[in-house]
Amino acid sequence: MLSPITQRLIKAFQSIPGIGPKSAQRIVFYLLSQASREKASTLADALQSAVKQVQKCERCWFYSEENLCQLCSNAKRDSTLLCVVESPADVIAIEQTNIYSGLYFVLQGHLSPLDGLGPEEIGIPVLFKRLQEGVVKELIIATNPTMEGQATAHYITHHVDSQQIRCTRIAYGIPLGGELEYLDSGTLRHAFHSRMPIPSITER
Amino acid sequence: MLSPITQRLIKAFQSIPGIGPKSAQRIVFYLLSQASREKASTLADALQSAVKQVQKCERCWFYSEENLCQLCSNAKRDSTLLCVVESPADVIAIEQTNIYSGLYFVLQGHLSPLDGLGPEEIGIPVLFKRLQEGVVKELIIATNPTMEGQATAHYITHHVDSQQIRCTRIAYGIPLGGELEYLDSGTLRHAFHSRMPIPSITER
Repeated sequence: MLSPITQRLIKAFQSIPGIGPKSAQRIVFYLLSQASREKASTLADALQSAVKQVQKCERCWFYSEENLCQLCSNAKRDSTLLCVVESPADVIAIEQTNIYSGLYFVLQGHLSPLDGLGPEEIGIPVLFKRLQEGVVKELIIATNPTMEGQATAHYITHHVDSQQIRCTRIAYGIPLGGELEYLDSGTLRHAFHSRMPIPSITER
Repeated sequence: MLSPITQRLIKAFQSIPGIGPKSAQRIVFYLLSQASREKASTLADALQSAVKQVQKCERCWFYSEENLCQLCSNAKRDSTLLCVVESPADVIAIEQTNIYSGLYFVLQGHLSPLDGLGPEEIGIPVLFKRLQEGVVKELIIATNPTMEGQATAHYITHHVDSQQIRCTRIAYGIPLGGELEYLDSGTLRHAFHSRMPIPSITER
């Protein structure tokens, strides 16, 4: 009984992962209500201009409407550090920690041969080209600790000349506030394997 | 570190109730990824045309891009039955039951004097005008069983000439599959109050 245009809009919202038919309908009815028409208009405009103008930063592949994103064009960032991540959302997560002041390289996902995603497809050759420029001194690999993320990390470290560039990997282990009792054994095994010496009081 | 256009898009998504900052970011990053650009474009188009073209049906106030919605323009629907609901989503819910073949009138919400919503604001005078046309024989009130929904129902029944039009209210009680033990006492009280005679075997 819904009009074609309304149905089309509900379908379009449903195409976003995590939004099911019920949520899509709720969102559409909300946006079509008299009080929210302006919000709906703003959303449509914002989406249209984002689709048209937001592209990959030509240097790090983060999203940007300029040629260079705000991170790459920031002269205060340390260009000798390069952090490799799987997605733009990972950049946001790392930036929120305020711990890192280097630059990023955003892969197009991770290696996944079964899905036809080899080194070329996710942009590893572009990363290597960047490393050859000779500016980067440390490559911090921050792919996800999944099978595919680990494979991607392996592939990269295997092909990087360790004489020229120091390769590091962010630590995987017990999350802060986590309880050993409820931790999966894979993580716990990894935490044992990667145990660190405790500095003696004099060292501290 | 996000570009202004991306930020604006995230904000626009956040303005939808039920979508928080994290979900908005996830949706935006999904839509901006290379593989989903077309979906994003479709969504923007669908939204733009819905905002421009979808209006209230001039008869029942359900959403439609025609003057009359598909329900009001369907000659097979029984025009002597009119069901009053609070929102377009309620129409969908009732239609999904396949139990009702009459027409609808969609109020603009419910009476809520504290929010400045009186009978005029939610469209009750328009409903009464429709009843005066003399076609409707039964008015089925299906507002929500909330304080405001009940007040709205009361207001309507109080002002309808019961000689001309039969006023009914959909039943409130124990939901099918519900357990008495876990039911709130308000509903249980209502279910006792509205108990129905069980037809004797001969009557059945």
